[in-house]
Amino acid sequence: MVRLETCLPPELSPARRSELLDAESARGGQLVADGTIRDIWRIPGKLANFSVWETVDATALHAALTSLPLFAFMQVEVTALAVHPLRAAQRGQS
Amino acid sequence: MVRLETCLPPELSPARRSELLDAESARGGQLVADGTIRDIWRIPGKLANFSVWETVDATALHAALTSLPLFAFMQVEVTALAVHPLRAAQRGQS
Amino acid sequence: MVRLETCLPPELSPARRSELLDAESARGGQLVADGTIRDIWRIPGKLANFSVWETVDATALHAALTSLPLFAFMQVEVTALAVHPLRAAQRGQS
Amino acid sequence: MVRLETCLPPELSPARRSELLDAESARGGQLVADGTIRDIWRIPGKLANFSVWETVDATALHAALTSLPLFAFMQVEVTALAVHPLRAAQRGQS
Amino acid sequence: MVRLETCLPPELSPARRSELLDAESARGGQLVADGTIRDIWRIPGKLANFSVWETVDATALHAALTSLPLFAFMQVEVTALAVHPLRAAQRGQS
Amino acid sequence: MVRLETCLPPELSPARRSELLDAESARGGQLVADGTIRDIWRIPGKLANFSVWETVDATALHAALTSLPLFAFMQVEVTALAVHPLRAAQRGQS
Amino acid sequence: MVRLETCLPPELSPARRSELLDAESARGGQLVADGTIRDIWRIPGKLANFSVWETVDATALHAALTSLPLFAFMQVEVTALAVHPLRAAQRGQS
Amino acid sequence: MVRLETCLPPELSPARRSELLDAESARGGQLVADGTIRDIWRIPGKLANFSVWETVDATALHAALTSLPLFAFMQVEVTALAVHPLRAAQRGQS
Amino acid sequence: MVRLETCLPPELSPARRSELLDAESARGGQLVADGTIRDIWRIPGKLANFSVWETVDATALHAALTSLPLFAFMQVEVTALAVHPLRAAQRGQS
Amino acid sequence: MVRLETCLPPELSPARRSELLDAESARGGQLVADGTIRDIWRIPGKLANFSVWETVDATALHAALTSLPLFAFMQVEVTALAVHPLRAAQRGQS
Repeated sequence: MVRLETCLPPELSPARRSELLDAESARGGQLVADGTIRDIWRIPGKLANFSVWETVDATALHAALTSLPLFAFMQVEVTALAVHPLRAAQRGQS
Repeated sequence: MVRLETCLPPELSPARRSELLDAESARGGQLVADGTIRDIWRIPGKLANFSVWETVDATALHAALTSLPLFAFMQVEVTALAVHPLRAAQRGQS
Repeated sequence: MVRLETCLPPELSPARRSELLDAESARGGQLVADGTIRDIWRIPGKLANFSVWETVDATALHAALTSLPLFAFMQVEVTALAVHPLRAAQRGQS
Repeated sequence: MVRLETCLPPELSPARRSELLDAESARGGQLVADGTIRDIWRIPGKLANFSVWETVDATALHAALTSLPLFAFMQVEVTALAVHPLRAAQRGQS
Repeated sequence: MVRLETCLPPELSPARRSELLDAESARGGQLVADGTIRDIWRIPGKLANFSVWETVDATALHAALTSLPLFAFMQVEVTALAVHPLRAAQRGQS
Repeated sequence: MVRLETCLPPELSPARRSELLDAESARGGQLVADGTIRDIWRIPGKLANFSVWETVDATALHAALTSLPLFAFMQVEVTALAVHPLRAAQRGQS
Repeated sequence: MVRLETCLPPELSPARRSELLDAESARGGQLVADGTIRDIWRIPGKLANFSVWETVDATALHAALTSLPLFAFMQVEVTALAVHPLRAAQRGQS
Repeated sequence: MVRLETCLPPELSPARRSELLDAESARGGQLVADGTIRDIWRIPGKLANFSVWETVDATALHAALTSLPLFAFMQVEVTALAVHPLRAAQRGQS
Repeated sequence: MVRLETCLPPELSPARRSELLDAESARGGQLVADGTIRDIWRIPGKLANFSVWETVDATALHAALTSLPLFAFMQVEVTALAVHPLRAAQRGQS
Repeated sequence: MVRLETCLPPELSPARRSELLDAESARGGQLVADGTIRDIWRIPGKLANFSVWETVDATALHAALTSLPLFAFMQVEVTALAVHPLRAAQRGQS
């Protein structure tokens, strides 16, 4: 579980802002496509999201996160997740 | 997005503790089965989880949360979630 | 603007719990009826609410808050509110 | 329930500052007029307010918030609100 | 400047509660009468107050604070205060 | 009760710094003279103070606070104050 | 990286306290012996430690942590760790 | 540098309270006498102090702190201290 | 007891940085020499220190602190200190 | 135990950024080689690490930390560590 919050300086030029957000969106799309980002939700009112990432280990996760074009502007909080028994039961049934 | 953390008093008798955890697990299973709890992960080292709930509105969410047998022992944080463009794109493709 | 959060000890007997919540509800109804509580919303997942109170001064507000049967169990945060220009404009038009 | 706090850099030129605040006020007026902002109060001593927004879902709320001209300068906290029984009773009576 | 917040356990018997509050009020009255407490205001919604104390030194302040019958139930924050130039000017004029 | 803390950027030129502080002091003197600021103390080691303001309502308080020349550099915390029984008794006696 | 802090209630009987601490120490010794706890340091002045745990995944880590006899009395914070380049280089050299 | 804050439960009997405080004072006196506690100040309004301890290493410091009869009731914060150049200079002159 | 933490902007030129630190060190030396700063320790890893200041009153302390050349870059926390009984006893014996 | 978090301003030029990170890496390698840094782990998603340093005393630790080329950009938290009995036992066996 990763919580990303981006703080773009308000004085950024609109052109640079668009360019950064487009690059971010493109890289995010790749990470969704290759299964690294499993799910993602936006937190309303913020340039922030909760997302579920799946990587081999924490070193690979760090590499994936730092590959984001906006990484230098982000505050990132990572929480390791364990399987919850309710979820394990649900998977066992299907 | 709901973050639940349960604080059971350490001096609870083992029997009462089991009884409460079983009732909680049963009610949780119902909420997973009826689609209220969409996904759930355990936070390692804590009696805590992140989960994604889907209800008609916040009033229904409150009713579902207070139906948990351990509600009186929980610290609950609710964050409304918006659709993230990356996720919207992904859904559009499938 | 008042934010009230109630912490009832989990080991309270169900009878005492109901009795306290009923008394609270009755007193709350009076404060709504006499216009002291102007508006109120529940914060989902908590025994907590945001509410807008209107009293002559802060001394009367303190008296109204301490008249709540659950006052001894509450954490109360009071924020004085000023009229917002958007709201003043809206009132001027009606 | 939305809590907005705006931090305009003190070194902003007075002309730019007025321009931004006027644009913000105009957009705020539209959101009040179309019913998105249901109520709003200023927090004295701050460029901050509490306001009650009503939108179809959290995605629409995010769109409305990011339409504010000062969004890039704001710290925004969103709390989903459930109907409070006292308020439900009051509405039932009228 | 002293900020006192009292947390009386909710399960205290009403008689014991009254007794403690009466003793506190009596001792508070003495400290006001002898000039130790120079001014005092209640924070609405809390058993808390801001007050201005004047003592020879911090050791005497500690002795005065611990003489309060409710001291064992209090959270106390002390901030040393310096004379503000505006206040010095005002005194110089009178 | 108002707690003001001013953060002047360290790189401000000494001339601009003096000019701002002089304007602030002049406006503060007016607010003391007209009774809006009832009392004021400096917090040692900071450009900060505790002060007691008296205005008709919170809207007037906001107007008075934003009239300070250094308002854009300040962090302001407002706490509404109720009359404390000890103080009420003291006034009744004089 | 796990930070464990234990809060034993001060009113625990000395016998029960010793019994719990002995059971904890025995289980801790097993986890050190089987390589789950890789390293451990005490934080002076607290019943707390920093320790490095190595498990297959976060689900196994949760199982190992909840196997501690004092788990119900602990506050646990887990931080996933990635390999640091300096450490990777060091290992490569040996 | 050690900051100790003691929280004695308010419902402790006066006899037990005195007994604990006397034992604490006696042990504190020994630690002052043998040079472990180099200096100590009380924080007014709290059962708390700042003190400077000197021990061979952090393990010895932990042993000294846990030898306090009130250790189970304390919140302890330890900050390692380095020599400050101003102090080094002062010592060099004497 | 004063805790000072200095935040020099990283982009400061090395020459300006040295100049400021030298001026600070010179003024600090004066305050140590005239007995205002009684003791001082560095907090490792930070441009920060704990120090014990002795002045006639809080107004004089504020004047001394604002005389530091780096005052505009500092975060300052002042805690009034009372004599601790252990220290009083120690002084009485010598 | 040291927790270092580096905040490089996002607007730093890529060349200056590389230069700083290379210098940091080189100095870090020296500190690993001479045994000052005993172990180090990266915190995923941040330019941050946990590391175990061993120096003669806190003054030497401060000197080592300030020798890092990125020191001016870092937030550093130092926690003294005591030997944990589990670790002492383990060492005794080998």
